Amino acid sequence: MHDDIGDTENAIMSIVTTPDLERALDALRPQLKRWRRDFHHYAESGWVEFRTASIVAEELERLGYAVSVGRDVVDAGSRMGVPEPEFLARALERAREQGAIERWLPALAGGYTGVVAELDTGRPGPVLAYRVDLDALDLDESDDDDHRPVQEGFASCNTGMMHACGHDGHTTIGLGLARLFVELKAQLSGRIKLIFQPAEEGVRGARSMVEAGVLDDVDLFIATHIGTGVPSGSVVCGHNGYLATTKLDATFSGVPAHAGANPEDGNNALLAAAQAALGLHAIPRHSQGASRINVGVLNAGSGRNVVPANATLKLETRGETSAINDEMQRRALNVLHGAAQMQGVEMDYRLAGEARNCEPSPELVTFIRERIDGLTGIDTVIPVENRPSGSEDATTMMQRVRERGGLATYMVFGADLSAGHHHQRFDFDEEVLPLAVRTLAHLALAADDPALKRHIVKKDSPANNGSRRPRRD
Amino acid sequence: MHDDIGDTENAIMSIVTTPDLERALDALRPQLKRWRRDFHHYAESGWVEFRTASIVAEELERLGYAVSVGRDVVDAGSRMGVPEPEFLARALERAREQGAIERWLPALAGGYTGVVAELDTGRPGPVLAYRVDLDALDLDESDDDDHRPVQEGFASCNTGMMHACGHDGHTTIGLGLARLFVELKAQLSGRIKLIFQPAEEGVRGARSMVEAGVLDDVDLFIATHIGTGVPSGSVVCGHNGYLATTKLDATFSGVPAHAGANPEDGNNALLAAAQAALGLHAIPRHSQGASRINVGVLNAGSGRNVVPANATLKLETRGETSAINDEMQRRALNVLHGAAQMQGVEMDYRLAGEARNCEPSPELVTFIRERIDGLTGIDTVIPVENRPSGSEDATTMMQRVRERGGLATYMVFGADLSAGHHHQRFDFDEEVLPLAVRTLAHLALAADDPALKRHIVKKDSPANNGSRRPRRD
Amino acid sequence: MHDDIGDTENAIMSIVTTPDLERALDALRPQLKRWRRDFHHYAESGWVEFRTASIVAEELERLGYAVSVGRDVVDAGSRMGVPEPEFLARALERAREQGAIERWLPALAGGYTGVVAELDTGRPGPVLAYRVDLDALDLDESDDDDHRPVQEGFASCNTGMMHACGHDGHTTIGLGLARLFVELKAQLSGRIKLIFQPAEEGVRGARSMVEAGVLDDVDLFIATHIGTGVPSGSVVCGHNGYLATTKLDATFSGVPAHAGANPEDGNNALLAAAQAALGLHAIPRHSQGASRINVGVLNAGSGRNVVPANATLKLETRGETSAINDEMQRRALNVLHGAAQMQGVEMDYRLAGEARNCEPSPELVTFIRERIDGLTGIDTVIPVENRPSGSEDATTMMQRVRERGGLATYMVFGADLSAGHHHQRFDFDEEVLPLAVRTLAHLALAADDPALKRHIVKKDSPANNGSRRPRRD
Amino acid sequence: MHDDIGDTENAIMSIVTTPDLERALDALRPQLKRWRRDFHHYAESGWVEFRTASIVAEELERLGYAVSVGRDVVDAGSRMGVPEPEFLARALERAREQGAIERWLPALAGGYTGVVAELDTGRPGPVLAYRVDLDALDLDESDDDDHRPVQEGFASCNTGMMHACGHDGHTTIGLGLARLFVELKAQLSGRIKLIFQPAEEGVRGARSMVEAGVLDDVDLFIATHIGTGVPSGSVVCGHNGYLATTKLDATFSGVPAHAGANPEDGNNALLAAAQAALGLHAIPRHSQGASRINVGVLNAGSGRNVVPANATLKLETRGETSAINDEMQRRALNVLHGAAQMQGVEMDYRLAGEARNCEPSPELVTFIRERIDGLTGIDTVIPVENRPSGSEDATTMMQRVRERGGLATYMVFGADLSAGHHHQRFDFDEEVLPLAVRTLAHLALAADDPALKRHIVKKDSPANNGSRRPRRD
Repeated sequence: MHDDIGDTENAIMSIVTTPDLERALDALRPQLKRWRRDFHHYAESGWVEFRTASIVAEELERLGYAVSVGRDVVDAGSRMGVPEPEFLARALERAREQGAIERWLPALAGGYTGVVAELDTGRPGPVLAYRVDLDALDLDESDDDDHRPVQEGFASCNTGMMHACGHDGHTTIGLGLARLFVELKAQLSGRIKLIFQPAEEGVRGARSMVEAGVLDDVDLFIATHIGTGVPSGSVVCGHNGYLATTKLDATFSGVPAHAGANPEDGNNALLAAAQAALGLHAIPRHSQGASRINVGVLNAGSGRNVVPANATLKLETRGETSAINDEMQRRALNVLHGAAQMQGVEMDYRLAGEARNCEPSPELVTFIRERIDGLTGIDTVIPVENRPSGSEDATTMMQRVRERGGLATYMVFGADLSAGHHHQRFDFDEEVLPLAVRTLAHLALAADDPALKRHIVKKDSPANNGSRRPRRD
Repeated sequence: MHDDIGDTENAIMSIVTTPDLERALDALRPQLKRWRRDFHHYAESGWVEFRTASIVAEELERLGYAVSVGRDVVDAGSRMGVPEPEFLARALERAREQGAIERWLPALAGGYTGVVAELDTGRPGPVLAYRVDLDALDLDESDDDDHRPVQEGFASCNTGMMHACGHDGHTTIGLGLARLFVELKAQLSGRIKLIFQPAEEGVRGARSMVEAGVLDDVDLFIATHIGTGVPSGSVVCGHNGYLATTKLDATFSGVPAHAGANPEDGNNALLAAAQAALGLHAIPRHSQGASRINVGVLNAGSGRNVVPANATLKLETRGETSAINDEMQRRALNVLHGAAQMQGVEMDYRLAGEARNCEPSPELVTFIRERIDGLTGIDTVIPVENRPSGSEDATTMMQRVRERGGLATYMVFGADLSAGHHHQRFDFDEEVLPLAVRTLAHLALAADDPALKRHIVKKDSPANNGSRRPRRD
Repeated sequence: MHDDIGDTENAIMSIVTTPDLERALDALRPQLKRWRRDFHHYAESGWVEFRTASIVAEELERLGYAVSVGRDVVDAGSRMGVPEPEFLARALERAREQGAIERWLPALAGGYTGVVAELDTGRPGPVLAYRVDLDALDLDESDDDDHRPVQEGFASCNTGMMHACGHDGHTTIGLGLARLFVELKAQLSGRIKLIFQPAEEGVRGARSMVEAGVLDDVDLFIATHIGTGVPSGSVVCGHNGYLATTKLDATFSGVPAHAGANPEDGNNALLAAAQAALGLHAIPRHSQGASRINVGVLNAGSGRNVVPANATLKLETRGETSAINDEMQRRALNVLHGAAQMQGVEMDYRLAGEARNCEPSPELVTFIRERIDGLTGIDTVIPVENRPSGSEDATTMMQRVRERGGLATYMVFGADLSAGHHHQRFDFDEEVLPLAVRTLAHLALAADDPALKRHIVKKDSPANNGSRRPRRD
Repeated sequence: MHDDIGDTENAIMSIVTTPDLERALDALRPQLKRWRRDFHHYAESGWVEFRTASIVAEELERLGYAVSVGRDVVDAGSRMGVPEPEFLARALERAREQGAIERWLPALAGGYTGVVAELDTGRPGPVLAYRVDLDALDLDESDDDDHRPVQEGFASCNTGMMHACGHDGHTTIGLGLARLFVELKAQLSGRIKLIFQPAEEGVRGARSMVEAGVLDDVDLFIATHIGTGVPSGSVVCGHNGYLATTKLDATFSGVPAHAGANPEDGNNALLAAAQAALGLHAIPRHSQGASRINVGVLNAGSGRNVVPANATLKLETRGETSAINDEMQRRALNVLHGAAQMQGVEMDYRLAGEARNCEPSPELVTFIRERIDGLTGIDTVIPVENRPSGSEDATTMMQRVRERGGLATYMVFGADLSAGHHHQRFDFDEEVLPLAVRTLAHLALAADDPALKRHIVKKDSPANNGSRRPRRD
C-alpha cells in the first residue's frame, strides 16, 4: 500500500527539521499553563463561552489571523440545545464582569460563540484545519482541599460550570498552535484554519459550524481530545470508537385535575412519561452493532394532589453506526407518540444534539503514524483505537470534510487524569499541552505531502453553491 | 304516591286467591328437582345450550305455547363472544349424544340458542314477560366427595362446563312457570312471555334478543336470579347494584424475529400488551361513582427465542353508571391504540360483552313488595338492594322495556349456598325453586292492576318500524 | 331523640340575646377586611407563617388571652413536610423585613408556627375550641388586571406563595372571634380555645398540635372552612366528605454510569420511579368505597447521558374510610419496595402528610343546625354535606377530640368565589367574614347547653399520662 | 508460527490416503439419504427422541460399537426443560407405533434419550469425539405442494414437530461416520466416540451428558452443524459466534378475586408479569459486547372477570461472553423478584436451558484448515467465523473438553437452504451429508498428529473423582 522506504525517509527528515519548533515551544510553555488555568477558572458552558471566545478571538487577531466569529461561522438555525434567552443574557453579563473583551461580544451575544481563524502562508498547499472546543460542563467543581485546582487557586469560580472534560486544554492547544504557526510561517505551505467550536458537550455545536460552511474548503482535518483513558505519552492517530447519537427533548402536555376531587378530568402526562421511559429502554438491541438508549432526565408534575399535566424527558440514542442510531431514533419517536396517545396527552419533541459515527481516513492515520513515531515526548503511537465509548460531534465535521473529498481524523493525546472525564474532581497532566502542540505543529510542517495529496479529491458540494450566503472565511 | 288502603286490600285479595296455585305447585315439586338436576348434569356454556334449549322448546310446545327459537329471537349480528365454529359444531354433536331433541337443533345450530314462548290468555291485559337464562360457566365442577352434586350423582358430565351460577335453577323456574300458567290460564289475563336467554355469562346474549325485538311489546318485565348472597326465604323486589360493563378482546399483531440473531427486525406484541395492561389498570378512578378495570387474560408469544408477534388481552371495564363505564371504555381504547403505536404493532379489538346499569322501575318494585308480603315461604321482603356487585345483561332488556314505556325490575330469590357463585363447589338450596315459581306466578295473577297500568305508557320505538324484519313473536 | 319544643325555645332565646354581639361585630367589620387583606398580601406557606403567627400572637396577648406558641403547641417530631433549613431561614428573614413582631420569632423559628390562645371565663362550662389555619399555597398569584387583589392592591407580594384557599379569611375569623369574646366575656361560660394551625395544605400540621396535647381537654370542637363550592349565605353544620389520606415522599438512589460508555455499571433510579408510578396507579379499586392514588411529582436524573442515580416521587393515597386508605398505603409501599428491587436501587420514604376521614358528631351538628337557623345573613342551613372531595387534617384533631369523649364538627361558610380553590385567580366574597364571626360567636354564647352536655363523656387518654411533657395550655 | 513446508506436506499426504474412504462413501450415499428422510419423517422433539435414539443405538451396536444409552450418558438431575410425564409417555407410545426398536426403550423412557458409541482401535492415539444432535423443533411442517419433503413424501408425520434445523442431517452424519470408521478401522488409531445428544433445541441437553462424564476423557472434540447461512461447498473450521445464554421459566402466583365485586382482595400476577416483561427488556446494554433479552412467551389469567392469580414467562438472556450473560441473568432475577414484590405475589423460576460462549481451540482450527484444504467437494475453507448469532449447547461440551486439557472446535458444513433455520419450509441440499462424512472421517485418519498432540495436556478434573458414579464409557 505504501512505498515503505520513501515513507521512512520522509519521517526521518520531518523529525530533524524541528529545532525552530522546539525553541518556540519552550518559550510558549508558561503561557500554555496560564491559558489553561485561566479558562479553567472562568469555565463557561455550551453557547455561553463569551469570555473564552472573546479572548481567543482577540489573541488570534493580535497574531495576524483572519478571524471570523458569531453568525459568520455559526449557522443560527442549526444550533441545538441553546439555553433560554434569559440565561444567555445573564451569562453575557457575567462574562463582561470576568474580563471578556468587549468588542467581540456583540457578535457572540445570544449564543454564537464560535471562532475561526485562518493563516494563509501564500504558498500552494493543502487547507489544513484543526478543531478544538471551548465549552465547560454543567457541573459543580469539587472543593476538596486535595483537588489541585483548589490547591493552586484555579478551580472554577462559576457555580454549576466546570471544565471536567479538558476543553480548557483543547482551547489552550489551539492558541498555542496559533502562536507557533506565526513563528514557523516560513516553513509552512497552503492555508491553516483553526476552528474553535462551542457547545461540544451534548453534541450541539458542530452542526452549526458545518452548516455555516466552515469545513467546505478543508483538505486535511484533525480534531483533538486529551485524556480519554489513554496515558500520558501515548498518542492515538485515529480514534474510531465514537457512537452516532441523537439527543431529544420530549414534552408531554396533558390536562391537570384535582387528584382527590375529580381525577377523571385529568390527562396524565407523568404516566405518559413513565410509559415512555420504559418503552424507550425496551427498544430492542441491534444485531449489527452496539446501540444505546438513555432517558437521563424525567421531570413531571406540579404538585402532589394534582394530576400531572406536564412532563419532560431528556433522552439520547446511540449506535455504532449512524444506521443503527437512525433505527433507534425511529423507534424512540414511535414510543413517544404512542405513550402520549395512551394517556390522551400531547407530545412535542425537539432535536437537542446530534453526532455521527465516522471512521478516520486510513491514509491520514497512516501518514500521522509515520510522521510522529519517535517524536519527543511520545512513548507509544497507537494507530487506531476502536473501543466504542461516548459520542463527539467533531464527527459531523469529519463527515463533511470526507464528503467533500478531504481527509479527516480524530487524534487523542494521552494524559494521566486525577479522575474520569465528567467527574467533579477531574484534572489532567498539563504536560499534554506542549506535547499536543508540538505534535500537531509537526504535522503541519509535513502536511504538504504528495502521498497524502493523491488521496484528496475535492468535490464541489451543493453546500458551496447557490443558496448559501457569503462567508468571510 | 299510592292509594294505600286500596293497595292493601288488593294485596290481601291476591294472597287469598291462590289455592289452585298451591295445588299445582305441589304436583310440580318433584319435576322441578328433576329438571334442575338434569340441566346441571348436562351443563352447556354460552351459545351452545343446544340440549337445554331443545328440551325447553319441546316442553313449551307440548304445553301449547307459541314457541320461537333461533334466529327469530336471536339477532345474528348482535351476538357477542360467540365461540369458534368448530367448537359450536362439536358441542352440537355432543348435545345430540346427550339427548337433545333433534327437531329443534337445525334452528339452534351455530349458536342461536334462545327460546321465547308466548301464552295468550285471550283476555285483555298487559304483556308480562319473565326472563331466565340457560347457560353454564366455563369451569370444571368439583369432584369432592362431599359436594352434593357428586354425592347425588348430578355433577356436570361435561368437562370445563358447570352450572356454578344457578342458571340451571333459572331455566327450571321458567319451565315450572310455564306449567302453572297453563293450569291457571283461566285466572290470567293479557299475554305472558317466557324468555329463555342464552349466554348471560360474559353478558353476551341479551343484546341479540333485544335487537331481535323480543322485548318491544312487553309492558311488565321481571328478570330473576337466585342466591347472590341473599339467604333462603328473603326476596329482593328490585336489585339495583349491577354495574354497567364492557367486555373487550384486543389483539396485537407485530412482526416476529429471532431474538438472538436479529431482534431489531421484530415488532414486539408482548411488550405492547404489557404496556397496555399497565396503562389500563392505571385509568383514573371516577369521582362520580364506582369504576372497575380488569385485564383478566393476557396470552402472548410463540416461543422463548422469538420476538413475540402476537398477543391477546381479555379485559372488562365497569361503572356504577353507564356514563362512567363509557368513560372507562373510551380511555381503554386510547390505551390499547397507544400501546400498539409504541411498539409499532397493529391492534384490533372486538366487543365481547356489554351490559348497562339500570334502575328497576319504582312503581313495579312497590307493586311487587306489596303483593308478595306474607306469601308462603317468604320471611323477608327487601324492597331495593343497592350493593354494587357484578354485571348482568338483563339490564339491556330492562332498558329496552323502559324505553318503550313499560316497567321492568330484577328480582332476587334468596338461597343458601354451599359456596359462592362461580365457585367449583357452588350448589344451592333447591327450596328456592318452588318459592320462586309460586312468587312469580302469584304476581302474574295480580298483574292486571290499574295502579300499575297507569304507569305503563307504551311508545312505538323505531325498532318496530321500517328496517326490521318480520318476527313471529 | 330530641325534646323538640325545648330545643326550639332555646334556639329562639339564643337568637334574641345577641344585640351586644351585633354592636361589637359592626365595630369590627373594617378590621376584618384589613386583616384579611394584610395576610393575603404577605402570604406565607406552610411552616413559614412567621409574620402571620407573630401578628396573631401579639393581638391575642394584647387582648388578654393566655397565648402559647412554638414547641409548646407544635410537637417537633410529629411535624410533616417541613421545608429545608435554608428555606426556613430565608423565610424568617423575609418575615422580619415584612413587619413580623420580633419578640415572637425566636419561638416560631425553624417552623414551629402554631399559636393557641385561651380565654377562661371563670364560670363553669365546656372547653370550646375553634380551629383556623394560617398557611398559603405554593402558587404564584395571578397578575391579571381584573383580579380584585391586583386591582385593590393586596395581591401576594411573595413569589410562589398565595392565599388561594381562603386561609387568610380563616385567620381573620379567628382574630375576629378573639375580639368579640373579650367583649362578650360576661355572657360566656367555661373556657374558649382559639387554635391557629400551621401547614394545613398538604395535611402536614394538625398531627403536631394533636401530639402536643392541644386538643386533649377540648369538649366541643369546631373547625371551619369558607367557600368549597357552597354559595354565600349557606352554612354547612357538619361537612362529612373529606377523604382519609397519606402523603408520601419516596426517593430512589441508584448508581450513576455513563450511558454511552458503560451503561451496565448503572442502577437506574429513573426506571424504578417509572415502574413505581405505573404500579401505584394500578393499585386496585376498593369495593368498600372511594379510593384515590396520585403520583403528583416525579423528578429523576441529572443529565441526559448519565444513567439516572436518583429519583423522587411525591404521591398521595386517599380513601373514603381510613381503612381503605390504609390498604392503599400498604400496597403503595409494596410497589415502591418492589420497584427498587427490580432496578437494584435503594428506596427511602417519609410521611409528608396525613389525615383521617372523620364524621362530625351528630349531636353537635343537630345543636348547631337548631341554633343558627334564622340567624342574620344565613339563607340556607345545610345539616350535613356528604360530597367526597379533598382531604383536611382538622380531621386528626376531630378524631382526638372524639376519642377523648368530646364532640367535634367541621363547618363550612359558603362564599361566592372568583375562581376555584387553589386557582391563581381565587378570591372570595368578604361578606363571609362577619357572617362566620357572628355565627361562631353565637354558638359560643349557647354552648353551655344541657342537651349537649349529656353527650360529652371525657376520658383520660393515654396521651395525657406518663411520657408526655408538661404543657402550658 | 507454523512450519509451513511440513504442514503442507502433511496436508498433501493426508489427502492422498483416502481411496478407501471414497469407496466406502460411495457405497454409503443412498443410505445417508434414506436415514435423513426417515428421521425427518418421524421427527421427534427434545427428550422424546425415542424412535430416533433406538434406531441409532441399534445400528451402532450392530456395527460393533460399545454403546451406552439412557442414564449412563444422561445425568438425570442436569437435564433442563424436560416435558411433563404425560407428554413423555404419549411420545414413547407413538415411537413404538412408528417403529422404535423395543429393546432400547426401557433405558430411554422418561427422557434419557442420549446415545454414546465408542470404537477402540486398539492402537495408541487420542480420544477423538464427534457430537451430533437428535432432536426436532416444536413446529408444524409446511404442507405446501412445492415444499420438497411434501413432494417427495418425507415431510413430518408428527403434528407440531419438524426437523427445521437440520438435526436429521446431523444424526445421519453420525451414523455415516460410524459405518466408515468400521471400514477404515485399520487406518485409525486411538479411540473414537460418537456422541448423539438429545434436546439441543432450547440448549437443554448437553449439560446432562457433560455431567454424566461423557466428555471427561476426550482429547479432540468436533461438534458439527450444517447450513447456518454458509453456502454449499464452504466449510467453517471454527465457528465462534454462539452467544452464551440462559433460559428461564418464571411463574407468578397471586390471589384471585372477583374483579367487579372485590378487586381489592386480589394480588395480580398478570400485572407482575407485565411489569417484569418491561423491566427485563429494559435491562441495560453491555459495553463489553453483545447482549440479548427476550420474553418470548407470557401467559396470564384465567378469566376476564377474575383478578389474575397466575402468570408464566418464558424468557432468555444471552451474552457475547458468559460474563455478560451472567450479568444479564443476575439483573433478570432482580427484575422478577421485584415485580413479584410490587404486586404482593410469589415468584418461582427454574432453569430451562443454558449454554456458554466458547472459542474453538486455535490449534485445532489450524489443524483442520490445513487438513481439509483441497478436499473433494470443498470450494472454500473458512478458518474462523465470528458472526454472533444464536446459541448452541455443544459449547458446554467444548468447555468441559478444554477444561480437561483437550482441544475442541465447532465446524459448520455449508448447505444451501430452501428457507431459514426454524422456518416451516426449511430443507437443505442433501449433498452436504457425504461431504460432511468425508471431511470428518478424513480428519479422524489424520488425528494422531504430533503437532496437535503437544497442545493436549489432559488434567484430572474433579468431576472424575470422588462423588461421581461409575460409567460404562
